[in-house]
Amino acid sequence: MAIRSNDILRKKLSTIIFESDTKAGKLFDLVLLWVILLSILSVFLESVASFRAQYLIYIRTVEWIFTLFFTLEYAVRIYSSAKPSKYIFSFYGLIDIIAFLPTYLSLFLAGAHYLVVIRAFRLLRVFRILKLSRFTSEGNILRNALKNSLYKITVFLASVVTLVTIIGTLMYIIEGDASGFTSIPVSIYWAIVTITTVGYGDISPQSPLGQLLASILMIIGYGIIAVPTGIVSVEMARATDEAKEKCPVCYAPVYPANARFCSRCGKELKELEKP
Amino acid sequence: MAIRSNDILRKKLSTIIFESDTKAGKLFDLVLLWVILLSILSVFLESVASFRAQYLIYIRTVEWIFTLFFTLEYAVRIYSSAKPSKYIFSFYGLIDIIAFLPTYLSLFLAGAHYLVVIRAFRLLRVFRILKLSRFTSEGNILRNALKNSLYKITVFLASVVTLVTIIGTLMYIIEGDASGFTSIPVSIYWAIVTITTVGYGDISPQSPLGQLLASILMIIGYGIIAVPTGIVSVEMARATDEAKEKCPVCYAPVYPANARFCSRCGKELKELEKP
Amino acid sequence: MAIRSNDILRKKLSTIIFESDTKAGKLFDLVLLWVILLSILSVFLESVASFRAQYLIYIRTVEWIFTLFFTLEYAVRIYSSAKPSKYIFSFYGLIDIIAFLPTYLSLFLAGAHYLVVIRAFRLLRVFRILKLSRFTSEGNILRNALKNSLYKITVFLASVVTLVTIIGTLMYIIEGDASGFTSIPVSIYWAIVTITTVGYGDISPQSPLGQLLASILMIIGYGIIAVPTGIVSVEMARATDEAKEKCPVCYAPVYPANARFCSRCGKELKELEKP
Amino acid sequence: MAIRSNDILRKKLSTIIFESDTKAGKLFDLVLLWVILLSILSVFLESVASFRAQYLIYIRTVEWIFTLFFTLEYAVRIYSSAKPSKYIFSFYGLIDIIAFLPTYLSLFLAGAHYLVVIRAFRLLRVFRILKLSRFTSEGNILRNALKNSLYKITVFLASVVTLVTIIGTLMYIIEGDASGFTSIPVSIYWAIVTITTVGYGDISPQSPLGQLLASILMIIGYGIIAVPTGIVSVEMARATDEAKEKCPVCYAPVYPANARFCSRCGKELKELEKP
Repeated sequence: MAIRSNDILRKKLSTIIFESDTKAGKLFDLVLLWVILLSILSVFLESVASFRAQYLIYIRTVEWIFTLFFTLEYAVRIYSSAKPSKYIFSFYGLIDIIAFLPTYLSLFLAGAHYLVVIRAFRLLRVFRILKLSRFTSEGNILRNALKNSLYKITVFLASVVTLVTIIGTLMYIIEGDASGFTSIPVSIYWAIVTITTVGYGDISPQSPLGQLLASILMIIGYGIIAVPTGIVSVEMARATDEAKEKCPVCYAPVYPANARFCSRCGKELKELEKP
Repeated sequence: MAIRSNDILRKKLSTIIFESDTKAGKLFDLVLLWVILLSILSVFLESVASFRAQYLIYIRTVEWIFTLFFTLEYAVRIYSSAKPSKYIFSFYGLIDIIAFLPTYLSLFLAGAHYLVVIRAFRLLRVFRILKLSRFTSEGNILRNALKNSLYKITVFLASVVTLVTIIGTLMYIIEGDASGFTSIPVSIYWAIVTITTVGYGDISPQSPLGQLLASILMIIGYGIIAVPTGIVSVEMARATDEAKEKCPVCYAPVYPANARFCSRCGKELKELEKP
Repeated sequence: MAIRSNDILRKKLSTIIFESDTKAGKLFDLVLLWVILLSILSVFLESVASFRAQYLIYIRTVEWIFTLFFTLEYAVRIYSSAKPSKYIFSFYGLIDIIAFLPTYLSLFLAGAHYLVVIRAFRLLRVFRILKLSRFTSEGNILRNALKNSLYKITVFLASVVTLVTIIGTLMYIIEGDASGFTSIPVSIYWAIVTITTVGYGDISPQSPLGQLLASILMIIGYGIIAVPTGIVSVEMARATDEAKEKCPVCYAPVYPANARFCSRCGKELKELEKP
Repeated sequence: MAIRSNDILRKKLSTIIFESDTKAGKLFDLVLLWVILLSILSVFLESVASFRAQYLIYIRTVEWIFTLFFTLEYAVRIYSSAKPSKYIFSFYGLIDIIAFLPTYLSLFLAGAHYLVVIRAFRLLRVFRILKLSRFTSEGNILRNALKNSLYKITVFLASVVTLVTIIGTLMYIIEGDASGFTSIPVSIYWAIVTITTVGYGDISPQSPLGQLLASILMIIGYGIIAVPTGIVSVEMARATDEAKEKCPVCYAPVYPANARFCSRCGKELKELEKP
């Protein structure tokens, strides 16, 4: 009998913690999100030197309260889930444990507790509360487009990495230590800073030949950004297309959105409306 | 009788001030635009130290003349509008009051009068004078495309913010105070500067590991700019499509612009022309 | 009789100088391009201090030789053209005179002769020698796409300018002189440097609030670059479409390039080929 | 008879070295890739001053071992290929020899051996081991798209170079030595840094007029990046289109991917499936 009521409690908890369709479940998720946000904020504040000097003891206390809360939540999640092992090794299960482990780790290893910002990933649960299905479908379009672009982007990146290696080495030979090109890895770092148009300016060529080569690299970088953009645009168009409303007869995507007839099989989709 | 002539005056003023179809209305809008431009210019000049030192008294006088002019204009607008409350709480009504209030506020709060640059928003009225309808329709296409992209861009931005938080914290741990990564918020600021390819260079990684992580962040930032671009391109194509000339029979968009037959229902749209 | 032979000479010169279909005309254009390139190079070299110190007399001599050459060429162009006034006030006519005038001007005004680099525009004649028609048609597609994007881009730029003015002023109020935001125009310059993702770093925010606002501006700038890109992509697609091979019956653009039937009227365009 | 067994050996070697379909061939390619990676890594490490000071003798030894290995490999490749001259002058043949020659060259010319990083190009062989055909087809789409964009991009680049020359010279006249604009070539270098939105900040305008001109250049650079992007997007869409599954009857590209009927000739491509 005790086992029975235990089971009911477990199921009730599971609905509240893992789902957000009920009122209690939604409230729990909302509270959780705010707690996560506050805990991240407290980590941020601790890292600010002037703040740390004055309020360290309070921040640490708050951090431990958050950690105990997340530990407890984790325990309850394991307890209430039907298959604990499945939860533990799921994406969210791993994130959940990483969200409080670093604080315990910091007892032995100074600075480790900053890693708790990984709990920022827990914020992705926000999509569960908001209009979930809509966001998920948009997310799927993005994911599909990126997945389909993967091969082309790998080819593209391989070319960029090769280019950056060659030009970085050339710049090391041309410019040398005086202008900050102290080694080939540093020169490659500079080439990446340049080709991505970031341009810190902590290292920059001083000799005419180096400036010429840098100019060529910049124009290449400026031009080839068109390539990944073109790839993703095309895939995005295709993925959007495939996620469209389908004709009930032939399953062809309905295009444009307000089309009157299916463009494949001619099935009438909408009544004639006066605009 | 006095009330009658009052009403006529009100209506006349309303036509001049709120519309720009009549000659007087157009002239009023044009003069207003120039006055706004000049008043913004005077704020700019006041902020230049060498200029302020020499001509402060003149600039202040001019600023008060502008403010009195805009106050008067505001009063006339309220007086001449049929429903004053509707005007006051409209977008332009709020902008109009913010355009002169800061000068009065500056009597109590030094520096507040710089906020009058918000009157730059009043310049958006320029679209009323120019070929209005054309610009509005183009603006609508932009607005529709951006509105439809909103969900996808929210998903995208949420991912970017999470990524920037994680990498900013990692860099704070790796680089620390010496290289300018003085706190986690500052490191996140650096990560945003880097991922958006702005790259000020006021903070930049010095350690090999930090430069490696920065390189990865740059390449990610360089690559994922393709994502919002792809999203907007697709939506822009769709919005342009939906704003096109429609077939008079089936309301399908006419494509291409010079099509001879409707591609949906076959209706002949244009006579055959010899190119 | 002398007039007759004069006319023939004029016509012959005109063919050589203004056209590049004949062998002599092509040779003339080629020589001219090299002379222009060399003259620009000599201006570049003169501006290099170490070079100027040593070889000033030679560079000046060379520059005067080029100037006399271009003056002579200009005189011959006027002489040989059927309607001199038409040539003088054409785009190329104006460029041609600006290409040598600054050298004469430099007799009275030091430094003016650097303006001769405007002769770089003369290099655009290169398209006359290369496969002209192909380049012109590609150039037309570009021009049409840009022309059609003009309205949308004006709306976009007006919004960007307003945004940059407001944020520049806010940063002036927040940061002030200490961080280099010495006046509102300078702050607006900073805002443009930031929103366009150039990011020199000569001016950069130091206060937390300033860095927050800068971060927002960067993310806006990173996001909205998608807008002009989307606009131009759509227009480019349309312009490419309109420049395509047309169906000989209904003048609809043939799509895809190797289509067998016209997609509008069904006319057979190509024989069935085994791939 | 000896010649016979020689021929068999040659063929066997050829299969292992030049192809990667057999198990031995795949293993050889994999080992080769790791050796190349390690040899590049050793060059990187040598360039790091602190590392070079301590371990120079080891790094040099390792480098010579790699060089002898690559020399031997090159000899075997020549020996085993059916037509040695064809291999020697092929793209990979030239890369292979450049991959070890610089080490020998460094005996006479200090620093030359850094050029061995050109062996990074050898890594492109990685595509042979991975799903080759898929990558090659994706690479072809990229190549076709870029080839078709070539004309338009040439026109675009010619305009950018002209613009950069003119504005660079103007900035030299406006700003002069004090702000770092020491010569016209340096000013043009600055203009390229700015228009590509790299923005090192090593040179930046100080005068109001210079900052105004720089702002205009930045906004132009920010806007016209849309042009190559638009060009490549359109070409990428076309190239993707042309690489699509073709209808078995009329060879029209099948669109969308899951279309039920060919949109050209009406041939049924797939059975009706319930989604």
